[in-house]
Amino acid sequence: MKNFMDHDFLLDTELAGLLYHNYAAVMPIIDYHCHMSPKDIAEDKKFENITQVWLAADHYKWRAMRSCGVSERLITGDADDFAKFEAFVGCMPSLIGHPVYHWSHLELKRYFGYDGVICPENCEEIWEITKKVLEGGLSTRKIIEKSNVKLLCTTDDPADSLEYHVALRDDASFAPVVLPAFRPDKSLNVDAKGFAEYIELLSSVVGKKIDSFDKLCEALASRIEYFALLGCRTSDHSFDNEVVFDASLSEQEVKKVANATFKRALSGDPIPSEAACAYKNALIRFFGKEYVKHGFVMQIHFGAMRNTNSVMFEKLGPDRGYDTISGKSSTMALAAMLDTLNSEGALPRTVLYSLNPGDNEQIADLAGCFQYASEESEGLMGLPNVVQGAAWWFNDHLSGMKDHFQAYANAAAFGKFLGMLTDSRSALSYTRHEYFRRALCSFVAGFVERGEYPLDIEALAQMICDICYNNTKDFFGFKLV
Amino acid sequence: MKNFMDHDFLLDTELAGLLYHNYAAVMPIIDYHCHMSPKDIAEDKKFENITQVWLAADHYKWRAMRSCGVSERLITGDADDFAKFEAFVGCMPSLIGHPVYHWSHLELKRYFGYDGVICPENCEEIWEITKKVLEGGLSTRKIIEKSNVKLLCTTDDPADSLEYHVALRDDASFAPVVLPAFRPDKSLNVDAKGFAEYIELLSSVVGKKIDSFDKLCEALASRIEYFALLGCRTSDHSFDNEVVFDASLSEQEVKKVANATFKRALSGDPIPSEAACAYKNALIRFFGKEYVKHGFVMQIHFGAMRNTNSVMFEKLGPDRGYDTISGKSSTMALAAMLDTLNSEGALPRTVLYSLNPGDNEQIADLAGCFQYASEESEGLMGLPNVVQGAAWWFNDHLSGMKDHFQAYANAAAFGKFLGMLTDSRSALSYTRHEYFRRALCSFVAGFVERGEYPLDIEALAQMICDICYNNTKDFFGFKLV
Amino acid sequence: MKNFMDHDFLLDTELAGLLYHNYAAVMPIIDYHCHMSPKDIAEDKKFENITQVWLAADHYKWRAMRSCGVSERLITGDADDFAKFEAFVGCMPSLIGHPVYHWSHLELKRYFGYDGVICPENCEEIWEITKKVLEGGLSTRKIIEKSNVKLLCTTDDPADSLEYHVALRDDASFAPVVLPAFRPDKSLNVDAKGFAEYIELLSSVVGKKIDSFDKLCEALASRIEYFALLGCRTSDHSFDNEVVFDASLSEQEVKKVANATFKRALSGDPIPSEAACAYKNALIRFFGKEYVKHGFVMQIHFGAMRNTNSVMFEKLGPDRGYDTISGKSSTMALAAMLDTLNSEGALPRTVLYSLNPGDNEQIADLAGCFQYASEESEGLMGLPNVVQGAAWWFNDHLSGMKDHFQAYANAAAFGKFLGMLTDSRSALSYTRHEYFRRALCSFVAGFVERGEYPLDIEALAQMICDICYNNTKDFFGFKLV
Repeated sequence: MKNFMDHDFLLDTELAGLLYHNYAAVMPIIDYHCHMSPKDIAEDKKFENITQVWLAADHYKWRAMRSCGVSERLITGDADDFAKFEAFVGCMPSLIGHPVYHWSHLELKRYFGYDGVICPENCEEIWEITKKVLEGGLSTRKIIEKSNVKLLCTTDDPADSLEYHVALRDDASFAPVVLPAFRPDKSLNVDAKGFAEYIELLSSVVGKKIDSFDKLCEALASRIEYFALLGCRTSDHSFDNEVVFDASLSEQEVKKVANATFKRALSGDPIPSEAACAYKNALIRFFGKEYVKHGFVMQIHFGAMRNTNSVMFEKLGPDRGYDTISGKSSTMALAAMLDTLNSEGALPRTVLYSLNPGDNEQIADLAGCFQYASEESEGLMGLPNVVQGAAWWFNDHLSGMKDHFQAYANAAAFGKFLGMLTDSRSALSYTRHEYFRRALCSFVAGFVERGEYPLDIEALAQMICDICYNNTKDFFGFKLV
Repeated sequence: MKNFMDHDFLLDTELAGLLYHNYAAVMPIIDYHCHMSPKDIAEDKKFENITQVWLAADHYKWRAMRSCGVSERLITGDADDFAKFEAFVGCMPSLIGHPVYHWSHLELKRYFGYDGVICPENCEEIWEITKKVLEGGLSTRKIIEKSNVKLLCTTDDPADSLEYHVALRDDASFAPVVLPAFRPDKSLNVDAKGFAEYIELLSSVVGKKIDSFDKLCEALASRIEYFALLGCRTSDHSFDNEVVFDASLSEQEVKKVANATFKRALSGDPIPSEAACAYKNALIRFFGKEYVKHGFVMQIHFGAMRNTNSVMFEKLGPDRGYDTISGKSSTMALAAMLDTLNSEGALPRTVLYSLNPGDNEQIADLAGCFQYASEESEGLMGLPNVVQGAAWWFNDHLSGMKDHFQAYANAAAFGKFLGMLTDSRSALSYTRHEYFRRALCSFVAGFVERGEYPLDIEALAQMICDICYNNTKDFFGFKLV
Repeated sequence: MKNFMDHDFLLDTELAGLLYHNYAAVMPIIDYHCHMSPKDIAEDKKFENITQVWLAADHYKWRAMRSCGVSERLITGDADDFAKFEAFVGCMPSLIGHPVYHWSHLELKRYFGYDGVICPENCEEIWEITKKVLEGGLSTRKIIEKSNVKLLCTTDDPADSLEYHVALRDDASFAPVVLPAFRPDKSLNVDAKGFAEYIELLSSVVGKKIDSFDKLCEALASRIEYFALLGCRTSDHSFDNEVVFDASLSEQEVKKVANATFKRALSGDPIPSEAACAYKNALIRFFGKEYVKHGFVMQIHFGAMRNTNSVMFEKLGPDRGYDTISGKSSTMALAAMLDTLNSEGALPRTVLYSLNPGDNEQIADLAGCFQYASEESEGLMGLPNVVQGAAWWFNDHLSGMKDHFQAYANAAAFGKFLGMLTDSRSALSYTRHEYFRRALCSFVAGFVERGEYPLDIEALAQMICDICYNNTKDFFGFKLV
């Protein structure tokens, strides 16, 4: 029986330990997709107590508490901070196998030096110890630095001023590189409430009236330019429910429909789903070309069904833990979209993520259809063009990561995998990289242990370092020393 | 190498053995969903031979035999009882890994004291031994008592008189509580053959002509009242193929369509699928409110494709082993249904079961969107409102249970899981609780073994007892000492 | 730690080793579905170097290389043979866990006597050694003979002359039986480009003008007759994307639509999807009856999305590694098709394969609905009528096989499983049978090891021999000594 979450947590063979401790653990972190606030980093946000850090904004923990039947008053309600913490701690013993169970323990260990078990008996002790550490100055920046993060990409709207990114770029006192990522969902969701208002905001940001589809593209192009200027290397798209794409329309045709649809949306008329589909079709083609031009990586997230609970949406708004997995299949539409972009020279390096774990094999194999290295590239042992991203959100747990590893390795060169990202709002989540790397080393060592891969430490170490760091650096083209 | 199905069957670590033998094995059983006949229990049905017990009505065993190419004459046909038993035994060696293989051995061990292997060589021996035990008085009630069942819920139509439940309630000689469960599928399936006849039957039961949707609701309300009077705590709904729900219609609108559709169905006219959908929408809203009022738990089964083989349906009728898994996705419609009910205060405590194992993660995460404890409840460590039910039917086997455990634990507090039900027609199936509990203890102990959960026997024992018994008792509100 | 791919590769217990070495390894091979060229076998094709054998036509290896970002020039392009081999070898260290990694090593071991690791350091050595072996006479026939293949079925169009099959039948110098398999996809795909040309070709082969649906059926019947004459025992159908079948139409109705649709297609008019569906419906009913008459086994492959990358399709044509898994569900249509055929006495012995691993359980349980042995048959321990085929194409790897084994064993008698086929274009792929058999023996032994099946060597040996050889022989009715 192994000790609870000790030095060799998740490392189930000697070789796994060797790969983790000697190679994985020492590689720095590139967090190429997260939702941290650039403002919080720029202003080095501090926290009063562990509830502020853990429970003020973390919908993973909220869902875990709800699944224990905890009253909402103790989750997002007006209960005091200690009561909320006590409620959370009270849930922990029931959360066996849940990622929040391990994440929470890792966070206390790595950032607060607390090695005990999170359970009701230790509730006050943890409250006191963490309070002291926070008072002692464990700020947002300290957490990031302590985590050995070299670079992180936040997620930013085209209309965002990026003022905090400018500030961070110019701040020599903070070593990690903080880059914006371009997330233009609002400009794509022509059929969503608030679209016209959003276009107005974008107009004011670019200082030009946007009254046609072409002008929208111009405005977005200028924002992409600005993002690129600040070092941006990636975009992010979220296609909710399912990816919708009709490949039967030519570029000419969709552009025409897109323009009419755009004007209709500005006038506040309802948008039929076919018109919205054509609009998105046209705009994604535009984005594809821009991304190719600027060398941006396009990240595509799909398969989430959002805001399922209207009552709670009214009370709390979006992103409060009321999203789930959509059962709709996106593979056909996604294939059509990649093919169309590819045919028009508009397919950038792309990362695909589905929230439905049943899509793992479909994505892995679809990615394999759009890989070709250009004739100009050296070719040998480069990187593929379209890849399956790491296990996302509801799949970001131990068994979800293992299933993803396996699906990836079955379909493609696992040694080329881009590895982990946090996708998180909290700097404490950098322990998820540790969690991932431990699971990764056990997965890789397992093949050797079972006689399915040679005991070639050099090759294995290279693979671990590539997946932890090098592949991401090269794929996104981050300029790091 | 472990001995074949010995004392520590399925218990793969010492801790698993400790948890099972000291805690799980001694907890009584609450079987909150089964298909046993209340008449058989009331009359204490006896059996002539093992074929009568095992092969007269068990479509699991029939399917297993068919998958060996056994002639239907030896399954549901006119072959004599010994020939049928011989045919079944002849299949056993091929059924490696099949749940019927383990279930059958457990049943012989626990109820017949037979510890040998079921194989052609032992066929006559088993026939003789089981015959003696059955002649010695192993009746339906004896099996239930021997199984340490405290309470069981049968599955009953609203039009059922519940006369056997009345008899059982008044029979002091039988300790286990037998309650009805409310299964109103026939009233929902407005587009099914025989609907008008069913409404006529229901009319005669309530003693009032049912000629409008409102009167139907009145009749059903009175039956719910009567079920509740006899201690009923739960309903059960089966949505075949897929859940259909259109959330765009208001309660007013669906009620209007429902009434027109109801009248149309009584007149024998064919029902368009949209009208049927609106009718079901209206009726499920009605049921939701009634269940909330009476504190019933709503169980929802979906994803089964029934009666796939027309030739055999003609010969044998429904429920003869010709059903299968539907590939249609129900997640979007189910989310819409839960949201609508929730918005109208009509969402009772709910258990979700899909026959498609690919839905595991989708259900687990969807359930997590409808959990909130009311402000009035104490909140701390209560129970969630909507939960994923145990692995159902074609998933009720060792790997299906493990996959379900994992999906549940990844998404929610596993310690709050409601545990096992038999869903069976046979009292012998109570060994499925043993099978489940052994798998459960190994699953839970595995986390400790791998250092992923602390070795806290008290917390582990509590979790095991909760999942085996306490959670179900509390969730359904069964009054048991 | 086990040695890399040694004598006990994949055999994780002593019992697995015993079952493999004593039973599985010595059984001959029946390869009931492959894509080898009968011409290559008839002419005993030879190879100049390892690139010619490995990389000239193997889209598995091409995809593996593409997933490493190798330039297409080094894959299907004009680079020289050694450069291509070097590029492939360069990818190998990244392919941890990928089936190509193990297949390639097994092929070098078994046919070239090379036991080293395939990696850049050994690249030249492997090139030289394999060159010598190929020069020494390792031809297509030698490989097949060395593999202990008793019988293999190629895949042949109805319009094929089968001249090489005739030649092989009459060639006493080559012991393995080579039979054609009937693959009439082109006659079914009435909406595909080139349909009219295909019908013209078929006309010329049968020497009769085919200008109606009835005449098409006549022509196809005569080809089936000819295939049967040459020993054919099986057909193969590929339903791309999804199975489409509308069971609401009677045989009379679909035949009428089929005839109109056929004429329309000959005239070059576009075919609406409903007309195509009815046409396929009519033709599959015809085929079903013919197969029943001739005792052919019908193999059905579905769930592949083909030619996803238009750019590469233009350059390279079909079957170049640009296919993937379709996310569309086929279960409902497939059930309707099997039911219709069954109702009309037109359901032959059938094998179902889906490219979507998420269909595993759906197929396994659907197959179980169409099993009944005829009254005339002896019944006891025969073989089921409809079965789930082995893990196919993108699922043909270690974890895919294990998942398939488990899904099969959960749903049906695993002892009746038909076992492995190569589905390959290369004779070297016979090592995939070894790979499969090793995984099979570990899977079966695992149940015994864990106390879930008795240690009955006789029963286990029988099961292994049945799955490796006997079941296939009996199911297809191959006449072999």
